[in-house]
Amino acid sequence: MTSEADAHAAAMSVAAGDSLQRIRQSRPLVHQITNFVVMNETANATLAIGALPVMAHAPEEVAEMATVAGALVLNIGTLTREWVASMILAGRAANVAGVPVVLDPVGVGSTMLRTDSARLILSQVSVAIVRGNAAEVATLAGQSADIRGVESMGTTGDLGTLACTAARALGCIIAVTGPVDAVSDGHTTLRVANGNPMLAAVSGTGCIASAISGCFAAVNRMQPLRAAVEALVALGVAGEDAAEHSTGPGSFHVALYDALYALSPDTIDGRARVSTA
Amino acid sequence: MTSEADAHAAAMSVAAGDSLQRIRQSRPLVHQITNFVVMNETANATLAIGALPVMAHAPEEVAEMATVAGALVLNIGTLTREWVASMILAGRAANVAGVPVVLDPVGVGSTMLRTDSARLILSQVSVAIVRGNAAEVATLAGQSADIRGVESMGTTGDLGTLACTAARALGCIIAVTGPVDAVSDGHTTLRVANGNPMLAAVSGTGCIASAISGCFAAVNRMQPLRAAVEALVALGVAGEDAAEHSTGPGSFHVALYDALYALSPDTIDGRARVSTA
Amino acid sequence: MTSEADAHAAAMSVAAGDSLQRIRQSRPLVHQITNFVVMNETANATLAIGALPVMAHAPEEVAEMATVAGALVLNIGTLTREWVASMILAGRAANVAGVPVVLDPVGVGSTMLRTDSARLILSQVSVAIVRGNAAEVATLAGQSADIRGVESMGTTGDLGTLACTAARALGCIIAVTGPVDAVSDGHTTLRVANGNPMLAAVSGTGCIASAISGCFAAVNRMQPLRAAVEALVALGVAGEDAAEHSTGPGSFHVALYDALYALSPDTIDGRARVSTA
Repeated sequence: MTSEADAHAAAMSVAAGDSLQRIRQSRPLVHQITNFVVMNETANATLAIGALPVMAHAPEEVAEMATVAGALVLNIGTLTREWVASMILAGRAANVAGVPVVLDPVGVGSTMLRTDSARLILSQVSVAIVRGNAAEVATLAGQSADIRGVESMGTTGDLGTLACTAARALGCIIAVTGPVDAVSDGHTTLRVANGNPMLAAVSGTGCIASAISGCFAAVNRMQPLRAAVEALVALGVAGEDAAEHSTGPGSFHVALYDALYALSPDTIDGRARVSTA
Repeated sequence: MTSEADAHAAAMSVAAGDSLQRIRQSRPLVHQITNFVVMNETANATLAIGALPVMAHAPEEVAEMATVAGALVLNIGTLTREWVASMILAGRAANVAGVPVVLDPVGVGSTMLRTDSARLILSQVSVAIVRGNAAEVATLAGQSADIRGVESMGTTGDLGTLACTAARALGCIIAVTGPVDAVSDGHTTLRVANGNPMLAAVSGTGCIASAISGCFAAVNRMQPLRAAVEALVALGVAGEDAAEHSTGPGSFHVALYDALYALSPDTIDGRARVSTA
Repeated sequence: MTSEADAHAAAMSVAAGDSLQRIRQSRPLVHQITNFVVMNETANATLAIGALPVMAHAPEEVAEMATVAGALVLNIGTLTREWVASMILAGRAANVAGVPVVLDPVGVGSTMLRTDSARLILSQVSVAIVRGNAAEVATLAGQSADIRGVESMGTTGDLGTLACTAARALGCIIAVTGPVDAVSDGHTTLRVANGNPMLAAVSGTGCIASAISGCFAAVNRMQPLRAAVEALVALGVAGEDAAEHSTGPGSFHVALYDALYALSPDTIDGRARVSTA
């Protein structure tokens, strides 16, 4: 049912610079229940883009925190059943409060616990955006996939088609990150060609993409497709800048925070590589 | 009851260079029960200043570890009830052994769990130094405060007055960090004007301030006011140096460890900006 | 029973460049159940050397993950009884699947919980390589040792003798890291003289040594002595390179990932400083 006109209109509504400005003005709180590997990284990326991170996972406080947040990011890396229960508590509170929820299904497909937990969250919480790699999203969409730990091994097929199919199956925005990212609401599918291969050489950049999706969703509550696209543009442009100032994954990682912090609305709009199809 | 002479005498007793030298000679063990976001950061800051960090939270080992430590740092970010119970076990063992305890009340005021947990710790453990932001300290002192997650939003009123009031209410040293830090024992209040705004752009620098307070407390067991002031001088001077060698929060973060490591007793004494009232 | 000829033959079988090439070609999954302080660091080091890290500790998924891994790394820093139970579950699954297991006994000797837990793991899991500092290894070998938190305080005696004795006592490869590392199977003992003192100024480089041991073990399943030596060569050479591009522990830490990523098979072979005796 996608018309070219619809997709064109969606692409036109992307205005990452405007959102970036509103993030920095309103400094939304982005509540993150995320994995141990990347907590510091996603906190610093959230700060660098201009929002305020908070990590909290205790069942006694997650609903209270999520309710006052601008967005809630759930990330199932290093999960346990107790953490998943807290994610669902937080997610339901966010739903009641109208706070958009981003889900990062880290490692879905690699163990039954991961797959079951992501499905459980999706069945209990109304998720605005799922941000994952090709294998994770394919698994959630009921397709076969090749994942090694948390890494997608070879992306067979078109990411745009995958994003669209998964969005229809799950009823939310799907953002599949890869060499060229694809974002779809099941009707309109957009591609983001910003980024640098070095993003794949640093642990947690996918999780950072999800955290930044939360930042952009916080200032675009009614436009999750736009938020997901803009977040990937922002991270992609920052990745391009970081690659210019680094000599390997360690210095790239450091330069990425500098680049996110230095992003200006004009830069990001001028360099966005968003296309339909 | 503060006389100008008392405050002057306190300011004069600050000799961060001397303490730094003793930290590097004796390499005190600083036992930290801290949040997941900053564990690596506070460990590396502790090493960089010259002390030895150890992170341990299991109820079976915290008393044993705290007893042989030079200082114990309790930080309630990403808390759960089980971790708070371990903090109290460790804190009581530290009290028995005469090991100074630093409390970082991360996010107090943002959820009931955080506020209740900090109060519980303060009621069960004799704390030498509380290091927090304005909103956290105001909440502990029974005042209203504006906190968003773990970030103090706007510091109404004078930080020196706040530190003094809170010190009297809680019966320990209060170190409030902000653009200009204030440290008080409820009688004498000192200000530390070292630092750089970039410290607020990196996640965990407040927690690093608390960890370094532990390092200085370890070599000044009977002078916690002095220890708290000196720790903020050390971090502030390092922050000033780091700002000279960085282009954003990522490179500042890296340069901060280099700067802490490079601090010399003479530098730190010559550049300390400590004042009374 | 060690003959000079045996030791010479063992030293000759070390070919870190060949292993490095195979790591980058096969990209083995290295399942790590490790401490909160270093998770991001060991993940990034694993990626930088060319393997794929995954962190997973839930009892419901560790056996499934370990079974498909190329190696399993167990690290008892920030342990609790629940995590140790997961380590044993994972270790047994790895044993059944023929996946080599590396154990890092962080802080053994500093508390009873640490010592007991390491011994419990060694009694329940067939471990290929134990990688620790002098105090940790001495404690496991039943000798007295001086440890402060997780830091070995003064290495009395010869590390080669210690490694050999411990290897005989524990029945596995022992890699003791220090100014000059010693690796032994209880019969043949090799020394690795690569490295830089700055490695001791950054938190988690010992844990990184263990993670990289897992990477090399994954491509040398039947030669754990060789794997342990090569891993220390790789990290040591990277440390030497990082020291050339840094001005303190913060920039060294960053440069270490760049250096691991930049290692070439020829470089590593040409600069390996492995000796018998």
